[in-house]
Amino acid sequence: MPRGEFDLIDEFFNRSPQRSDVLLAIGDDCALLEAPTSEVIALSVDTLVSGVHFFEDVPAKTLGHKSLAVNLSDLAATGAEPLWCTLALTLPEIDRHWLADFSDGFHALAHRSGIDLVGGDTTHGPLAITVHVMGRVPKGNALLRSGASPGDLIYVSGPIGGAGYALEFLRNPELKADAFCLKCLQEPDPRVTLGISLRGLASACIDISDGLAADLGHILSKSNVGATIHLEKIPVAPQVRAYMESIHNPGFPLCTGDDYELCFTVPPHHQSRIDAILESLNLDGGCIGQTTNEPGLSIQSQQGALYLNRSGYEHFR
Amino acid sequence: MPRGEFDLIDEFFNRSPQRSDVLLAIGDDCALLEAPTSEVIALSVDTLVSGVHFFEDVPAKTLGHKSLAVNLSDLAATGAEPLWCTLALTLPEIDRHWLADFSDGFHALAHRSGIDLVGGDTTHGPLAITVHVMGRVPKGNALLRSGASPGDLIYVSGPIGGAGYALEFLRNPELKADAFCLKCLQEPDPRVTLGISLRGLASACIDISDGLAADLGHILSKSNVGATIHLEKIPVAPQVRAYMESIHNPGFPLCTGDDYELCFTVPPHHQSRIDAILESLNLDGGCIGQTTNEPGLSIQSQQGALYLNRSGYEHFR
Repeated sequence: MPRGEFDLIDEFFNRSPQRSDVLLAIGDDCALLEAPTSEVIALSVDTLVSGVHFFEDVPAKTLGHKSLAVNLSDLAATGAEPLWCTLALTLPEIDRHWLADFSDGFHALAHRSGIDLVGGDTTHGPLAITVHVMGRVPKGNALLRSGASPGDLIYVSGPIGGAGYALEFLRNPELKADAFCLKCLQEPDPRVTLGISLRGLASACIDISDGLAADLGHILSKSNVGATIHLEKIPVAPQVRAYMESIHNPGFPLCTGDDYELCFTVPPHHQSRIDAILESLNLDGGCIGQTTNEPGLSIQSQQGALYLNRSGYEHFR
Repeated sequence: MPRGEFDLIDEFFNRSPQRSDVLLAIGDDCALLEAPTSEVIALSVDTLVSGVHFFEDVPAKTLGHKSLAVNLSDLAATGAEPLWCTLALTLPEIDRHWLADFSDGFHALAHRSGIDLVGGDTTHGPLAITVHVMGRVPKGNALLRSGASPGDLIYVSGPIGGAGYALEFLRNPELKADAFCLKCLQEPDPRVTLGISLRGLASACIDISDGLAADLGHILSKSNVGATIHLEKIPVAPQVRAYMESIHNPGFPLCTGDDYELCFTVPPHHQSRIDAILESLNLDGGCIGQTTNEPGLSIQSQQGALYLNRSGYEHFR
């Protein structure tokens, strides 16, 4: 790694590893890590770009949190236990206060999640953050998108639409701001413990980053099943419910992204165990429908069937 | 991973894995990889930003090659065998020809190096490329920057300064262009096989990305040794030699970056084995000096001692 870059990572991000499997962290050409025996490594990477994935004035500490959280959410969706991560940070300038705050937010979540930052690179350019996470999962126990069977119950792990409403009120000062929804957007809590608890129980799993309809759609297409979900069963925070009513859009939680709850399917005979797990983890999630033989996503509501005019947030479209 | 993003990775970068330890590559929340038993995972990440690390008009195919090559070079410097990589690509627009060419350059080197692309993310924003590589090395055999002892011989694996001269003639059309030097800059050949061959022989190793003086400086500071090197012993291509003479700068190869040769130290009793390895790999490298007890880097030449006015390319400085 080039030197000027490495020094910045060393100065702001080099903290003592908490894991004993980290043999060498930041400071050489490569980090050295003891491979987990008889387990599989799960790996994911996500980039957040200023102005695309976050507002330019977002507090650095929450951005540090979120840039790790969205990646931990991918490990959660796989049922993997977090191990190691790297951070590639492109910065328009060196702002030491910003870097210290960003690092604090990143490391607080890393520490809580048992994951070590083992490598990094800082470069000069428009603000962008790429985080790479690795975790472990016993062989054959990883949660995939492809395992759902017709008749499985469809769950979400918590209220949907909070991040979406926060995006609305950040853009429109006439809307009422809400602390819970702002936290959903800026400091989502990745469902890592839930993901691990779902091993051997869930037949398929995904995290909700693009919107419930789009992400559930991935499970359906990968698993070759369809689904019927019930709009009124989707858990929604009261303040989001009030907003949906004010704009007469009952489909709002289907299409908003950035929630980072899990959407998963389970065979019906696991229902009571799943409900007990959600309760033990204090998660306000629940069953929202069922997979079917017929392809496609059918959305039922008390007002009849609902049609979506867009399937979620997609880049480049 | 968000859907619009994933589709682009799927369309342009999803090729059949060549490795049997890749259980699941692109297409789910995480890739799943079989961990190497009784070996250590080596891991590195580097970002290339348009206008900072490469010219905006660089051919996409060579950029695809280089973005993987600079990371493989970190594995080489650690003596690690390449296993898996991920690609996070931030693009200002979707240019399908560009993406196909970039992917071709990336995959050609990946195939040749035995590494599989197992994950990726494409986002919308100013052009930037973050590649993350993982490799394996037997425990205790990794090459570090910190292992040099006084009296070790200092080697470089090949001619230095070619990439630096290419940067000069790309900026100044009055200078004579040269195909060899352009290849050094745009399509460097990472010294992976050499790195693996140096296990158990080299006492310290680094790849030359910031310039020989700066990168050798890392070995010296991490190993708590000094060094004396002989300017005339640094291998330099004839066209670079002619340029150095024309600008009266004998120190040129000390300060130019982007060469991606290895700089390594070896105990003197391994000299003949190292020379044989370089010859067997057709590498025009050689011994350029020796480490010392006295701290600091002393540069000797037939004209006397040389002083550097800068220590290599550093970002933000």
